[in-house]
Amino acid sequence: MDMIEKTLCSEYIYKGRILNLRKDKVEIPDANGKTSTREIVEHKGAVAIVAIDMDGRIILEKQFRKPAEDILIEIPAGKLEENEKPECCAYRELEEETGFIPGSLKHLTTIYTSPGFTNEVIYVFMATNLTTGKLNPDEDERIDLIYVTPDEAVAMINRGEIRDAKTIVGILTAKQFI
Amino acid sequence: MDMIEKTLCSEYIYKGRILNLRKDKVEIPDANGKTSTREIVEHKGAVAIVAIDMDGRIILEKQFRKPAEDILIEIPAGKLEENEKPECCAYRELEEETGFIPGSLKHLTTIYTSPGFTNEVIYVFMATNLTTGKLNPDEDERIDLIYVTPDEAVAMINRGEIRDAKTIVGILTAKQFI
Repeated sequence: MDMIEKTLCSEYIYKGRILNLRKDKVEIPDANGKTSTREIVEHKGAVAIVAIDMDGRIILEKQFRKPAEDILIEIPAGKLEENEKPECCAYRELEEETGFIPGSLKHLTTIYTSPGFTNEVIYVFMATNLTTGKLNPDEDERIDLIYVTPDEAVAMINRGEIRDAKTIVGILTAKQFI
Repeated sequence: MDMIEKTLCSEYIYKGRILNLRKDKVEIPDANGKTSTREIVEHKGAVAIVAIDMDGRIILEKQFRKPAEDILIEIPAGKLEENEKPECCAYRELEEETGFIPGSLKHLTTIYTSPGFTNEVIYVFMATNLTTGKLNPDEDERIDLIYVTPDEAVAMINRGEIRDAKTIVGILTAKQFI
């Protein structure tokens, strides 16, 4: 079955700091020229890191998230800068947010966070053999670090205490290797 | 540490079909009145279903996703209607997209897809004891169904063939029960 939706026209509604919003008019395949509208949030992409410390614990962050109006528990993560390689971003973000530098970095998977409306992808890594670097959180971020064993992290997912998608993906895919 | 960001003002940029976009000016806690801007995509939320057929296989969908400009492999999912309960939405969407009615439905977890910029939550369920109902896909959706064993689904995640966050969360959390 032909599935590709041809773009008939595309219009930007907003160009912002971390995202753009555009509206595409598309032709539905095999539907006699029927069209539909797609609302699309453009995002530059991000990385997220399952970092394992010397005691075998996973480093998690508690952070207030304005869209959720709640404090969420997440793995360290951050947005890609212009032309930045995901691996370089992972080194940078982990050190900035936790003060640890990965001795080795393994790519676990790359996810679309919500492909119905956004092109955002997150490159998910596992970091091990951590050494001490320098904390340097963003000026507008307030982050508390917590350290849990992999089994406790899985229990937190099952109890609904960890609700962030990239964090669940990271922990459950890393679990095969730790 | 105080983490809650107080909203100083909030402005809608766009109100659309599946999402709204607003900009909030917020006060950063413990920062001498320092402020920041949050770009927030409002979404009504959705459900996703790991459906297990009579042969123990997981039902997956291949679907073109305009934001990704690619055909992705996902579990059945759909947006919540106004005042619709997630469980009711799961029954409705699974039947519409696959033609199967769940005999029993188990809540696996509820995820924030990308809490840095959107309030979207997805209620993730596992459906078993399926009976045959009536296919009724949306007019602007083209979906191919595929059936894979749970082990094959995990292998598809590890090979990077399944890249949708809710699908990875659903399969890996359901895996404990199947």
